[in-house]
Amino acid sequence: MTMTAPLAPTTTSPDVAGSALADELAAGLPAGAVLTDPDVVASMSRDQAAWAPHGRPAAVVRATCTADVVHVVRTCLRHGVPVVARGAGTGLSGGANAVEGCVVVSLERMDRVLEINPLEQLAVVQPGVVNDDLRAAVAEHDLWYPPDPASSPWSTIGGNVATNAGGLCCVKYGVTRDYVLQLEVVTGRGEVVRLGRRTAKGVAGYDLMGLVVGSEGTLGIVTEVTVRLRPLPAPAVTVAGFFSSVVAAGAAVRAVGEAGLVPSALELVDRHCLRAVDEWKNMGLSTEAEVVLLGRFDEPGELGEGLAEQMVACFRAAGATWAERSTDEAEAEALFAARRLAYPALERLGPVLTEDVCVPKEQVPEMLARIERTAVRRGVVIANIAHAGDGNLHPLLVTPPGDVEARARAEAAFDDIIADALALGGTVTGEHGVGLLKRDGLTAELSAEVLAMHRAVKAALDPAHLLNPGKVFS
Amino acid sequence: MTMTAPLAPTTTSPDVAGSALADELAAGLPAGAVLTDPDVVASMSRDQAAWAPHGRPAAVVRATCTADVVHVVRTCLRHGVPVVARGAGTGLSGGANAVEGCVVVSLERMDRVLEINPLEQLAVVQPGVVNDDLRAAVAEHDLWYPPDPASSPWSTIGGNVATNAGGLCCVKYGVTRDYVLQLEVVTGRGEVVRLGRRTAKGVAGYDLMGLVVGSEGTLGIVTEVTVRLRPLPAPAVTVAGFFSSVVAAGAAVRAVGEAGLVPSALELVDRHCLRAVDEWKNMGLSTEAEVVLLGRFDEPGELGEGLAEQMVACFRAAGATWAERSTDEAEAEALFAARRLAYPALERLGPVLTEDVCVPKEQVPEMLARIERTAVRRGVVIANIAHAGDGNLHPLLVTPPGDVEARARAEAAFDDIIADALALGGTVTGEHGVGLLKRDGLTAELSAEVLAMHRAVKAALDPAHLLNPGKVFS
Repeated sequence: MTMTAPLAPTTTSPDVAGSALADELAAGLPAGAVLTDPDVVASMSRDQAAWAPHGRPAAVVRATCTADVVHVVRTCLRHGVPVVARGAGTGLSGGANAVEGCVVVSLERMDRVLEINPLEQLAVVQPGVVNDDLRAAVAEHDLWYPPDPASSPWSTIGGNVATNAGGLCCVKYGVTRDYVLQLEVVTGRGEVVRLGRRTAKGVAGYDLMGLVVGSEGTLGIVTEVTVRLRPLPAPAVTVAGFFSSVVAAGAAVRAVGEAGLVPSALELVDRHCLRAVDEWKNMGLSTEAEVVLLGRFDEPGELGEGLAEQMVACFRAAGATWAERSTDEAEAEALFAARRLAYPALERLGPVLTEDVCVPKEQVPEMLARIERTAVRRGVVIANIAHAGDGNLHPLLVTPPGDVEARARAEAAFDDIIADALALGGTVTGEHGVGLLKRDGLTAELSAEVLAMHRAVKAALDPAHLLNPGKVFS
Repeated sequence: MTMTAPLAPTTTSPDVAGSALADELAAGLPAGAVLTDPDVVASMSRDQAAWAPHGRPAAVVRATCTADVVHVVRTCLRHGVPVVARGAGTGLSGGANAVEGCVVVSLERMDRVLEINPLEQLAVVQPGVVNDDLRAAVAEHDLWYPPDPASSPWSTIGGNVATNAGGLCCVKYGVTRDYVLQLEVVTGRGEVVRLGRRTAKGVAGYDLMGLVVGSEGTLGIVTEVTVRLRPLPAPAVTVAGFFSSVVAAGAAVRAVGEAGLVPSALELVDRHCLRAVDEWKNMGLSTEAEVVLLGRFDEPGELGEGLAEQMVACFRAAGATWAERSTDEAEAEALFAARRLAYPALERLGPVLTEDVCVPKEQVPEMLARIERTAVRRGVVIANIAHAGDGNLHPLLVTPPGDVEARARAEAAFDDIIADALALGGTVTGEHGVGLLKRDGLTAELSAEVLAMHRAVKAALDPAHLLNPGKVFS
């Protein structure tokens, strides 16, 4: 993993307040929208990828509307200054990290739900709407926005679009891309364009909307999102299984796939995570198992119960030390809460380097075995949470604060895991995005010709290389 | 509608056999792969868009493998000759129509199913595999490939990918794009690239695979497709409703949407279509109703039956003259067969100009009313079939063979329908693609800035403008 990125901060501080750039930015924006206070600017200069480098922004603009974003982009075009968009800053790959001397555009203030349309089953939102807030708003109309990254209490829809965020529901319901109908985007030329459509179907021209989803702010800044909704599903039936090893749990995941079951979630949490959650929230989980698998079905009534029983059978056949369909809703909720709390619980122990590989389902047991061997070989604590049902693993490499040698070992393990995922036919990033942490991995995953296509598309749509330069690929 | 396209044939025939181009093509291809016989070439020079112009190919190549396609593209690059890919030629927008002097690459011979993987729920196929053949092959593994254009007995997966084909199932299961995981593509530079991935999730880089899907052969020639599969659904429960007007049926469609029902199909067939099918197949349908709505639910058992009853109630509340859940599987199949036969049945009566607009669900009644007024105003027979559940309407403009005035009136009506769809917030093409027939419509639908983005992407990925030039946009 190369951390000597061109974005690493220099030693001198840019003197921006009172500069021509700051003056021109302020001239076209509401009072207080341009922030240059060093502490404030520093707090907006990175996301949650603890180990990714970042530069210092020349200024931060808190946009209130699309016109604000256009003004920033056009001003920066004139000055040749990069623009880095950010939402809540919950990213895990450094995608929102500041480029030295850039202007950071925060979209958090653009947080209005503009429309909820039950007949068309869609909602129109500004990019700063928090994922859980959108879910709550549409639930009042018995509607559901499925994409549910673990960051859903904090992350914004704009950030979810930028990274094509996934989550627990993906195994049945797909990712953010599958729920975006239309985007309003400010391009690197400072133009406002609408991509996609409001209709259920449409093939008028290239799928430029899909191209922007997951492009991590490098092809445009999303200023409005029209999302597809679904009817609220039936209350879920939960299955829990305890296993004596991650490899046994991986075999159970495979058995579920071989049985043709499509759960609405199938999550893996290992003892490192359970213990960290216990130490934080005292939930008493980690004494039960080395690894827990949590499955859910949201088919109504007996149908869901029958599917849950089939999953219990798969778990047991794969060697679960205990497996049951939960009849206690509070208990089931606690198990899923533990899964969601795993990442922040581990962060309390020290810097966490988050992996995000995705492998074919048949390779889940082998990938988990290789991760265990890597942990032993490199002498690194690697906790595992995983959207196991679609082969999306999140090994979490935890190091003691300030331990430089441990960090070096963790970085080596990070690279080992990427190499193993690629060797098993997987991808270096299932849902977190490339950002800075996976740039080398992207180069390893894609052919030279495909990388050249990326560069050609970037140059075609952002010819000034204004938007989030150096992210995804260099 | 501008039919004086630059692709219109000239009066002299290109003399190709024995030319340097033909010799160089033949030198790198299996014996018999290069066809220059004028009759054969003519038969491969267009799709089923009866009214779209087409040029005459210099040659047709029947590719047998990816290397053949690479050879054609590289040879054409040297000669500056356009390349037009085609599958079964069932397109309805002229997307596969020959450009004057081009080389047509037929992919029909590349018709092997390379892999069916029940655990990963995917299949890998060559582009010439017929849609129904893929369905039959995966059904043996209790798996299902949902996208089901009405052309499924003839159209190929490669063509489905090129147009991002839809079908009856889209209202619940989405379009071709939602089922493509990975593509092998020969680019306009003559390179072979793999886009997308085999894993369930992945966000490594831009969604170039999604960009190629629906690009109608203008960004690359698809030589292998990995598709996502689903478990076979339960047998469907069918609901039929008879209505005295298309507008009443449109109101019923809206009522279904307002009730939050998500059927696995919701099709509209009007009396023009029913009569044409009756005259061909003697099914005795057209005496029953002005318009028939056909709904399906594929939830198992009582769940599906309950949903079907809710749909019956919606139909009746919207004024159906008759509505029932079918208890006779043969009768239900006959109704859906009539829907699928509507287009070929109408074609027996004369050239059919096929519309493909898609409007928001709330606008379906208004759009159907406007189509009726257009038919009267322009003096054109307009039959209607529609994937009504997602607002995707297929008004079919039928003219007597050789009636030049009727054709002019139909072309004017075609433009009226496009204008109405756009005025109601719709799109000019829901699933057939832009090809040649909707180029003007595309220009009306997209902003100048978005069109410029299309041209920039095309230039970036096909700098020689070798691939299907003049299609989608000029």
